[in-house]
Amino acid sequence: MERDVALKLVKEQLTEHRYQHTLGVMETAIALARRYGADEKKAETAAIFHDYAKFRPKEEMKEIIRTQGFSQDLLRFNAELWHAPAGTYLVEKEAGIKDREILDAIRYHTSGRPGMSLLEKIIYLADYIEPGRHFPGVEEVREMANENLDKALIQSVKNTILFLMKKNQTVYPETFHTYNDLIQNGRVE
Amino acid sequence: MERDVALKLVKEQLTEHRYQHTLGVMETAIALARRYGADEKKAETAAIFHDYAKFRPKEEMKEIIRTQGFSQDLLRFNAELWHAPAGTYLVEKEAGIKDREILDAIRYHTSGRPGMSLLEKIIYLADYIEPGRHFPGVEEVREMANENLDKALIQSVKNTILFLMKKNQTVYPETFHTYNDLIQNGRVE
Repeated sequence: MERDVALKLVKEQLTEHRYQHTLGVMETAIALARRYGADEKKAETAAIFHDYAKFRPKEEMKEIIRTQGFSQDLLRFNAELWHAPAGTYLVEKEAGIKDREILDAIRYHTSGRPGMSLLEKIIYLADYIEPGRHFPGVEEVREMANENLDKALIQSVKNTILFLMKKNQTVYPETFHTYNDLIQNGRVE
Repeated sequence: MERDVALKLVKEQLTEHRYQHTLGVMETAIALARRYGADEKKAETAAIFHDYAKFRPKEEMKEIIRTQGFSQDLLRFNAELWHAPAGTYLVEKEAGIKDREILDAIRYHTSGRPGMSLLEKIIYLADYIEPGRHFPGVEEVREMANENLDKALIQSVKNTILFLMKKNQTVYPETFHTYNDLIQNGRVE
């Protein structure tokens, strides 16, 4: 899909703030794709659509998770997780995106999963480090992202787990499994 | 089993340092059992035997896990975890302990598990805070343990996860599940 067409579709779904974030993720994802040899066009499209469902009503997201073959476990954990799988479904249905790699990059951009593809890693990380993000530790991950993708990813997953534990919030099990998988199988040298 | 008999059995299995740790866990577990209304005698016995298998050869522990119905997943994670399930098996076989509650408190004293019993929580925590333990954060957990068992437990599980993540080590999934379970079901008020 042409970038302009995709951006127009997404702009209608988002607040201005979230749209600016999306542009940041897009630029970052394209740069990471170039750096690590992923498909730049797929990175662009996945980034543009990654938050497509962010402002859908919770009930709609819940219903999609309930009926469209997603893990029911999602409903027992933080609702912040829901826009990623719901987005996958809606982006396919409403924007006609059929590419499985792109859809999976959208699907796992919040939780991660063991055995993430290169494109999934890039979207997860771009979402975390795009220029509009400002929080303790983000600069460290940005620097790592220039050197080693898995190292940066491990650090961002760790930071996310730490952040949730500090607030006494649950951590979605897939995120923990992603951490263990990256420690066991990541290429950090 | 009489305390003296139990201590004698265990002393033969441990280094002097680890035996002193065991005495600390025993005193702490009895005090916690009194404080929170658990069976003090069971707490004593579980504490005395909790590290029974600590110095067995890795190959022996591996073989027990492989053949005695324990989760095979243990073998994919840190060998530090193995003495707990292996201990359960050996304590039953060699010391004749048959009480399921005591055996489970030994079994889960390192990993924890979702839905821990009161006795399991007490042994896990006593192992963490006994007077011989000196590391950053232990005093905070000791103070919590006087006020609220689940709060202290959450903090000790968090500290354990943090400690492992700082060293870029894997975290056994049951430990993560224990954290989530305590956040979702713990009584912290």
